[in-house]
Amino acid sequence: MPHSDSTRPTPVSVLGLGLMGQALARAFLRAGHPTTVWNRTPAKAEPLTAVGAARAETAAAAVAASPLVVVCVTDHDALREVLEPLGRAVDGRVLVYLGSGTASGARETAAWAAAHGAAYLDGGIMATPPAIGTEEALVVYSGPREVFDRQEPVLRVLAGTTTHLGADHGLSSRYEAAVLSLMWNVLNGFLHGAALLTASGVDARSFAPVAARSLEMVTGWLGGFAEQIDDGAFPGEDATLTTHLAAMEHLVRESEDLGVDARLPRFIRDIARRSVAAGRGDESYAVLIDQFRTSAGADR
Amino acid sequence: MPHSDSTRPTPVSVLGLGLMGQALARAFLRAGHPTTVWNRTPAKAEPLTAVGAARAETAAAAVAASPLVVVCVTDHDALREVLEPLGRAVDGRVLVYLGSGTASGARETAAWAAAHGAAYLDGGIMATPPAIGTEEALVVYSGPREVFDRQEPVLRVLAGTTTHLGADHGLSSRYEAAVLSLMWNVLNGFLHGAALLTASGVDARSFAPVAARSLEMVTGWLGGFAEQIDDGAFPGEDATLTTHLAAMEHLVRESEDLGVDARLPRFIRDIARRSVAAGRGDESYAVLIDQFRTSAGADR
Repeated sequence: MPHSDSTRPTPVSVLGLGLMGQALARAFLRAGHPTTVWNRTPAKAEPLTAVGAARAETAAAAVAASPLVVVCVTDHDALREVLEPLGRAVDGRVLVYLGSGTASGARETAAWAAAHGAAYLDGGIMATPPAIGTEEALVVYSGPREVFDRQEPVLRVLAGTTTHLGADHGLSSRYEAAVLSLMWNVLNGFLHGAALLTASGVDARSFAPVAARSLEMVTGWLGGFAEQIDDGAFPGEDATLTTHLAAMEHLVRESEDLGVDARLPRFIRDIARRSVAAGRGDESYAVLIDQFRTSAGADR
Repeated sequence: MPHSDSTRPTPVSVLGLGLMGQALARAFLRAGHPTTVWNRTPAKAEPLTAVGAARAETAAAAVAASPLVVVCVTDHDALREVLEPLGRAVDGRVLVYLGSGTASGARETAAWAAAHGAAYLDGGIMATPPAIGTEEALVVYSGPREVFDRQEPVLRVLAGTTTHLGADHGLSSRYEAAVLSLMWNVLNGFLHGAALLTASGVDARSFAPVAARSLEMVTGWLGGFAEQIDDGAFPGEDATLTTHLAAMEHLVRESEDLGVDARLPRFIRDIARRSVAAGRGDESYAVLIDQFRTSAGADR
């Protein structure tokens, strides 16, 4: 039976030793968990065996070694390619998937695990590999609450914040997608801004602190926007969409004048234009949620 | 002569009393500057005259009232619509434009001001109206250094940080565009994430703190990415573009599965795909700056 024993740290196996898998294994090792590692390309296990991990020759041996089996591969197809040949060897194990994936992939893996006697948690990591095991890291999990509760003392060595989202195995992929979408959009906004400025002779280094300050400012607005979204009411107190739209036209123009890619500025302007045309010009920026809730925009 | 006099606060006129113009006038009033206000629709002056501002009947009277004339209207066309009829009435004044605009608009206004004997600074506000006059606000200026230096003691009542970017009048518009691009991309990323989650039964309120934390994490990466951009070298130490791309495919899939607008996810994925196809897959995310530096992408 997989369980946490306060006197003896739970043995853990980590399958998949990319940058993230290695970071996970190191965090378990640091916390004193007997850790078995396996990777399709065995060389990747070497830095871990050097710091105390046991290397399994096969995925089957890795699964046999520990009641808690953490898998960190590219997607659910890759996960099942590794686990399916093992069949009932997963019986009685707790499988935790911490690689990338979709909600439907998570649900399929959950069904496969259930059919083979394994408990299953699907996780989403909101951290880079170097942040694993630090306060900064956040890992979310979805799947049966009681499975999470039993494994939580072990899983929390991976991150400062360890959260259970709900029983639906698809939730952590959705959460991960939402967070990654935000992060990539931030990075693209930064790169677009840096492209505008470096084309004007301003270096990116001098933009970074101003960008950081702007992110801090925007961060302060999210709570209020979230309330507006949940409540479905978007009073435009600080700045109306119409005011934003005027400045968006300038951003498009500035990008075009400098020969910088204008697709993001045009997207920004076009969704605002559509909302203003629909009579929402006096409301807040958050009213644009309606533009994201439908895929209709893509066809226009 | 426009100047700062340590014994008597400089009189200031504010033309254009939208939310931002009103906030600017209030900040000058709070700091003890005799403040004259004017707006095409006179009613907007009333809340300001109630707290000590003088209302000018005409734009000409407002310009005549103060050596320092701050204009906050929609764009440079609107600015010149107000000022051009006044002709040489601006002679000897310092004009500061703090509305929205483009670099080319700023340069045209600078030429017009010079031809009419006025000194000119173009400013860019990185703050919402309620933040004007607080530590949080940042206002950047471009134009002649000596004009900025002379007005800086007055201008700094508007913001915790008051920065001169350079003599080129176009610089503050570029900076403003870069910061706004970043902010709108952040907000769109948040709205897209919230659309994904609310479609999955998770409310936006519970996403906001996770989003805030993610922004904090990304903020920590900007300095390093900026160095990579300036140095033109993009070592993929923490996470390679190929690793990102795998997760981007999931984001597109997740958005499509939920019927949420997938244009941003596809944009995110497509630029990464193009860079990976060009052999940059082992480099860091910041290598995508090349995708923003050219408008070629839009035509493909």
